[in-house]
Amino acid sequence: MQTESRIKVRYAETDQMGVVHHSNYPIWFEVGRTDFFISAGLSYADMEALGIMLPLYEISCQFKSPAKYGDEVIIITKLDKITPVRICFSYEIIRAPDRKQLATGKTMHAWTDTALKPLNAKKLIPREFALLTQSIE
Amino acid sequence: MQTESRIKVRYAETDQMGVVHHSNYPIWFEVGRTDFFISAGLSYADMEALGIMLPLYEISCQFKSPAKYGDEVIIITKLDKITPVRICFSYEIIRAPDRKQLATGKTMHAWTDTALKPLNAKKLIPREFALLTQSIE
Amino acid sequence: MQTESRIKVRYAETDQMGVVHHSNYPIWFEVGRTDFFISAGLSYADMEALGIMLPLYEISCQFKSPAKYGDEVIIITKLDKITPVRICFSYEIIRAPDRKQLATGKTMHAWTDTALKPLNAKKLIPREFALLTQSIE
Amino acid sequence: MQTESRIKVRYAETDQMGVVHHSNYPIWFEVGRTDFFISAGLSYADMEALGIMLPLYEISCQFKSPAKYGDEVIIITKLDKITPVRICFSYEIIRAPDRKQLATGKTMHAWTDTALKPLNAKKLIPREFALLTQSIE
Repeated sequence: MQTESRIKVRYAETDQMGVVHHSNYPIWFEVGRTDFFISAGLSYADMEALGIMLPLYEISCQFKSPAKYGDEVIIITKLDKITPVRICFSYEIIRAPDRKQLATGKTMHAWTDTALKPLNAKKLIPREFALLTQSIE
Repeated sequence: MQTESRIKVRYAETDQMGVVHHSNYPIWFEVGRTDFFISAGLSYADMEALGIMLPLYEISCQFKSPAKYGDEVIIITKLDKITPVRICFSYEIIRAPDRKQLATGKTMHAWTDTALKPLNAKKLIPREFALLTQSIE
Repeated sequence: MQTESRIKVRYAETDQMGVVHHSNYPIWFEVGRTDFFISAGLSYADMEALGIMLPLYEISCQFKSPAKYGDEVIIITKLDKITPVRICFSYEIIRAPDRKQLATGKTMHAWTDTALKPLNAKKLIPREFALLTQSIE
Repeated sequence: MQTESRIKVRYAETDQMGVVHHSNYPIWFEVGRTDFFISAGLSYADMEALGIMLPLYEISCQFKSPAKYGDEVIIITKLDKITPVRICFSYEIIRAPDRKQLATGKTMHAWTDTALKPLNAKKLIPREFALLTQSIE
């Protein structure tokens, strides 16, 4: 299972190099992650309402070719790994018209409560945890 | 009473026009406001700990000359008006070396609780309210 | 003539008050402006390729009700005024499902060259200038 | 050789989790990098004036403990590696009062011209290249 999210590059996302500033890619990954959770029947907003947070503990990103103002880009999001305490995603950013790869990345998250203390997702949201686990297989 | 906050323009704040993107000025105003509250003996963080929020209901900004990457700029913050339900600030952004004016602006805020419902600041924080009121005179 | 642009609120656009930080509204206005120019047959990217810039000299925004993470919002963009040296837009941000008004705003821009010196848009891009002028009437 | 850059966490940098949004750390790393180049006698702005760019091709960041609004943080920047075509930095984000480590990271850059084509820094800026190389030893 993977989701595709489509966005258009905003002027404010560019920098004086004339291309998208790299700090926007983590934000785009998050857009992809939001859509992934929704398509897995479990919105990120719903989780927060349940007191479940998913803070990042690691991110990496490889930049292959710059995105530019006005480009339509697609964020492809895949669930890499899920355990009762962790969840890891991988991403690919491609340019919509020619599907040229612009960037790849990974994010690693902990399941925590609102005080950012670890919690066990398998026990807390067993149905959703099972759904997400199935989405890898 | 007025405060001066000094910041250095970040690369990420530029856009492909080669100057600071205008969406950063509201953020700089907020940096100035943060320092203003601290120098008035009432930090913004302390207020939030007391359950007091200051959401904006209006902002305006006039851009006179562009700020550029690496520029050292000063945010001058003044309290314009304070009532039990409202607080208004004005700002001036100047370039540090020559004190050239780059932008001016105003923000208008409501005193609210964490649910963003109006509250009466004069009753809730009388000592700090008096201090702020004196800072105009 | 007016355009409607649809976006989904990003997690990164929220702040610790639990709502969208106000500095994002100027960015959303710009998203609306981008779409307006495209629907007027004159993309912003094309203008920049011609060496025409549209730096802001004034912005104002009124916040009525907060946008929240996950909200689908619509940016309604209208051309308010156009002269050979200036162009002014007004915006309305509404929540998609119930069309509740969240914010309104205005931006005022100068037509300039890449060195941010004023230029005469009516002379430089007469066909597009006429098109934009007609879009008000 | 390493540099220390001091910044104060901005309200706009927080998200609804109540801590700094992770997309700000790449921006903070860049603040550190800017200061590193200045202390090495070669400002980033000067390099761009010479037509030399340093686009990222890879970034990674590990988040240890969240930064919060109002925190004073220090960005420690070190040059990890320099070759005629690449330059790599590592960073540590610590909280100023107690020097608690909040995050670590790395960025990898290519030396390019303004069209983002690779160039040979050792040939183009031999004096500065030698200076930077010495700063590792």
